[in-house]
Amino acid sequence: MRVMVLGADGYIGFPLCMYLARKGHPVVGVDKFLRRKWVAEVGSHSATPVKTMAKRLRVFKKIFGKEINFEYGDLRNYDFVAHVLEEYKPEAIVHLGELPSAPFSMMDVKHAILTQTNNLVGTLNLLHAMKSYVPGCHLIKLGSMGEYGACNIDIPEGFFEVEYRGRKETLMFPRQAFPDWYHWSKVYDSGNIMLACKIWGLRSTDIMQGVVYGTRTDEMLDDNLLTRFDFDAVFGTVVNRFCAQAVLGHRLTPYGSGGQKRPVIALRDTIQCFWLAVERPPEKGEYRVFNQFDEIYSVSEMAKKVKKVALTLGLKTEIEHCVNPRVEEEKIPYYNPIHEKLYRLGFRATHNLEEELIIMLTDLGKYRERLIAKADKIPPLPKTPESP
Amino acid sequence: MRVMVLGADGYIGFPLCMYLARKGHPVVGVDKFLRRKWVAEVGSHSATPVKTMAKRLRVFKKIFGKEINFEYGDLRNYDFVAHVLEEYKPEAIVHLGELPSAPFSMMDVKHAILTQTNNLVGTLNLLHAMKSYVPGCHLIKLGSMGEYGACNIDIPEGFFEVEYRGRKETLMFPRQAFPDWYHWSKVYDSGNIMLACKIWGLRSTDIMQGVVYGTRTDEMLDDNLLTRFDFDAVFGTVVNRFCAQAVLGHRLTPYGSGGQKRPVIALRDTIQCFWLAVERPPEKGEYRVFNQFDEIYSVSEMAKKVKKVALTLGLKTEIEHCVNPRVEEEKIPYYNPIHEKLYRLGFRATHNLEEELIIMLTDLGKYRERLIAKADKIPPLPKTPESP
Repeated sequence: MRVMVLGADGYIGFPLCMYLARKGHPVVGVDKFLRRKWVAEVGSHSATPVKTMAKRLRVFKKIFGKEINFEYGDLRNYDFVAHVLEEYKPEAIVHLGELPSAPFSMMDVKHAILTQTNNLVGTLNLLHAMKSYVPGCHLIKLGSMGEYGACNIDIPEGFFEVEYRGRKETLMFPRQAFPDWYHWSKVYDSGNIMLACKIWGLRSTDIMQGVVYGTRTDEMLDDNLLTRFDFDAVFGTVVNRFCAQAVLGHRLTPYGSGGQKRPVIALRDTIQCFWLAVERPPEKGEYRVFNQFDEIYSVSEMAKKVKKVALTLGLKTEIEHCVNPRVEEEKIPYYNPIHEKLYRLGFRATHNLEEELIIMLTDLGKYRERLIAKADKIPPLPKTPESP
Repeated sequence: MRVMVLGADGYIGFPLCMYLARKGHPVVGVDKFLRRKWVAEVGSHSATPVKTMAKRLRVFKKIFGKEINFEYGDLRNYDFVAHVLEEYKPEAIVHLGELPSAPFSMMDVKHAILTQTNNLVGTLNLLHAMKSYVPGCHLIKLGSMGEYGACNIDIPEGFFEVEYRGRKETLMFPRQAFPDWYHWSKVYDSGNIMLACKIWGLRSTDIMQGVVYGTRTDEMLDDNLLTRFDFDAVFGTVVNRFCAQAVLGHRLTPYGSGGQKRPVIALRDTIQCFWLAVERPPEKGEYRVFNQFDEIYSVSEMAKKVKKVALTLGLKTEIEHCVNPRVEEEKIPYYNPIHEKLYRLGFRATHNLEEELIIMLTDLGKYRERLIAKADKIPPLPKTPESP
């Protein structure tokens, strides 16, 4: 099956391209390297030294004997999007090509607008181009478990049956996203995709992904094939940031009480999930939702696990709660998102958090100098004039 | 109370400015006259001859002795928005300054993106500027009953209690908007406003407004004070379009079977509702939702009423169902949106549909030549390449 990966230079995008190519799918990656630019703008860099795309693709071909195509361009340019769809006629598109940071979106009005317009315009262009050039193609879109927000009832996979004033209806579960402009941009993408499936008969899997952690997948046999690893307060996610702190010998700093619960999944396992979604497309006109995660931990529990595993590797660290830069509920009395659909398709997690942490902390030890160089970027942003 | 009206040149905006000024509120209107430009772009014009803002304000002052201020500028420009908020320090802002057309948004990818980015960026600028300059100000935002879409259970005003798998939670009612990019842009605005109330303690009333019909309010004692009246397929709403057809002696053309039910409200009554919302602000941090309409009719029922009232005025017309240019459910077995909050604040409709139709058809008779000039713009747009 011909697969196009948008955001192919990203944390998930590059390993996904390699995985799909090894599985025998013709793959074309698309990217404009904006993530590299945005991370540089906040003064940070990837812990792993990320090679150029051209170099990575050469090395991948040498090792695995598979060609991955690549197109450079901007999803906000309709003509470009239409051109690559017409040229490659993908049967599945994995759309990871969005601006992925809650703190970035909260910096000021310009970043809020950049986040929402970047994400909405790219996806609107994609939907319109799919309708015109590949109406049968399957869109697999990266959303976030954060689209649901915290909720005191079970969270279904997309839709649920509601009883209200004596009548029943199946409705989309209300999305009351995490309190930032970024997570809401994902909610809005979901609305637009659902609409395109309804009016144009497109087919889509909307992925509500948990927090991803990890440094590697099995394809990274050579350091030239490493994916990026962000650890700064803006682009680094929580487990990855704790690992960087542990390797640096810094304190691990959960935001606030750390009671916030988060669904998590290892990088290699989320890639397995995307592959399963590619292999098992929905029907024409169908909009389906997968809750894509493996385990659930509170932020404090994650810190404790990192501390424990780090100690087994001789890395001594402490936990110090810091002021929460976000406006969020830290005491979550109940959190139970359902995640059954991917398991029914055959998903089995290969690594749990502790197992993967051993690999991560070992990997990151090699890049200690790069962590030290940007160590000042790990603490949360101060509450800016844009925060309350 | 100092009130700012965004979109002050619009169908509702101008009469609202006059109404609030007569009630004694200091009023400043803001507009960039984009509605005039967009209507011209689709080749149409207002049935009523709309004077320049400067002329209208001079005449209003002469007749009523009240000054309405006006600022020309674009809500998509943050510096402008910040400047007018800092300058006027409004205590209430009625935000009508958006692109209001479902068919416009469905013309092609450019119009889809223009609709969603215009609306989202304007509202994001406004929220950020309110936080910085008038954090206590009350935002009254024009949304649409179309944000809910059709639904087989009662539609509450914003929030409802859900029971799911044995647990209860109060959630936002899921918005599964009418099938076009425009109505979804309103859903996304609602999300952003709810977020700003939560994280910044702003206060807002989100107005889910039904379809508005009518040519006048009591302030229009002089033809120079008329508001615009769109009757083309892109910017004209359903009852107004039927009235134009009746005056022209054309057939009234419900889309499809005409079974689609729509909540409706007269122009003068929706203005009463906005005034009530201004007078009775919510608490700091509160995000409340009003379902703002008076009656519910199917599109066929509206056509029949227009036909009947027209006949009493000597205008003979027939009803001819045309191909529905929209992808929508035409058979609505159940439609029951709740609308209690405004009634509790004292709202009483002054005119029902039939009463207002007499006034409308009489008014429009005076502008028959202007209707004739653009009569070819009334039929629905053909299904474009962007439609299924």
